[in-house]
Amino acid sequence: MTTLNLVAEPGIQEIRMSREFDAPRELVFKAFTDPELIPRWWGPGDLTTVVDQMDVRKGGIWRYVQRDADGNEFAFNGVYHTITASEQLVFTFEFEGMPGHVLLETVALEEYNGKTLLMDTSVFQSVEDRDGMLQSGMEEGATQSWDRLVELLKTMNA
Amino acid sequence: MTTLNLVAEPGIQEIRMSREFDAPRELVFKAFTDPELIPRWWGPGDLTTVVDQMDVRKGGIWRYVQRDADGNEFAFNGVYHTITASEQLVFTFEFEGMPGHVLLETVALEEYNGKTLLMDTSVFQSVEDRDGMLQSGMEEGATQSWDRLVELLKTMNA
Repeated sequence: MTTLNLVAEPGIQEIRMSREFDAPRELVFKAFTDPELIPRWWGPGDLTTVVDQMDVRKGGIWRYVQRDADGNEFAFNGVYHTITASEQLVFTFEFEGMPGHVLLETVALEEYNGKTLLMDTSVFQSVEDRDGMLQSGMEEGATQSWDRLVELLKTMNA
Repeated sequence: MTTLNLVAEPGIQEIRMSREFDAPRELVFKAFTDPELIPRWWGPGDLTTVVDQMDVRKGGIWRYVQRDADGNEFAFNGVYHTITASEQLVFTFEFEGMPGHVLLETVALEEYNGKTLLMDTSVFQSVEDRDGMLQSGMEEGATQSWDRLVELLKTMNA
């Protein structure tokens, strides 16, 4: 089983993550763009995620709310800039607990031999913002999310 | 008269520009958000700019089309993520001549003694994209735009 590869070079306001998934890219794209599928993989498994808004078109707003077992809520939102079916998503991303700090995320999908390479690049307004995201436990969160995505993809039909 | 200050450090996917304007920040914000004012300052003076779309709200799309004397067109578009009146704009930016290359631009306004410091930060998906923008003549274009903005602000009433 492949695992998440995360690159965050010192002094650069970027995080690159990638992973290979054993599924056609149409299914991976669907998992990123279907509001009914997001709660099944987005975020760590010990939190529940509710899709509050998700309008998958240029200019559409997305907003997800996570809740932990104690009822604490963590909300995230952004707007879609690019939606290219099965190939690429470009959107903004903001954690509402740190308002005013916005990043630009690009999700690119490449398929070969029935497998999909997912490349996720986030660029931040500053190196400090990037480092803060890393310190918040982003790598562990993304690892858990993408492990859940692997399980979800097994249940989806091409 | 103050001039544009541009910082683009080697190997960093960011461009920072700043300039002081002799006007309250409400007027500078209005110049950035009023579709009737954009053609009066946005872009070099030898091009005409038409606002094709400009919906100044979260998720709203903007699209400007520039034409030169020979009728060549250059179009730009993006979506607004943050609109905080007289303080900050965060939006995506794409030159349609290079589709798929998107940047995140943050315009922040600070006022003191009736003057406004405009800080404009663009972060790119890669250093290559950033360097390409610099090589396209961005500094000269921004200098001309902001010189035109100075003239426009003189005609606006606080």
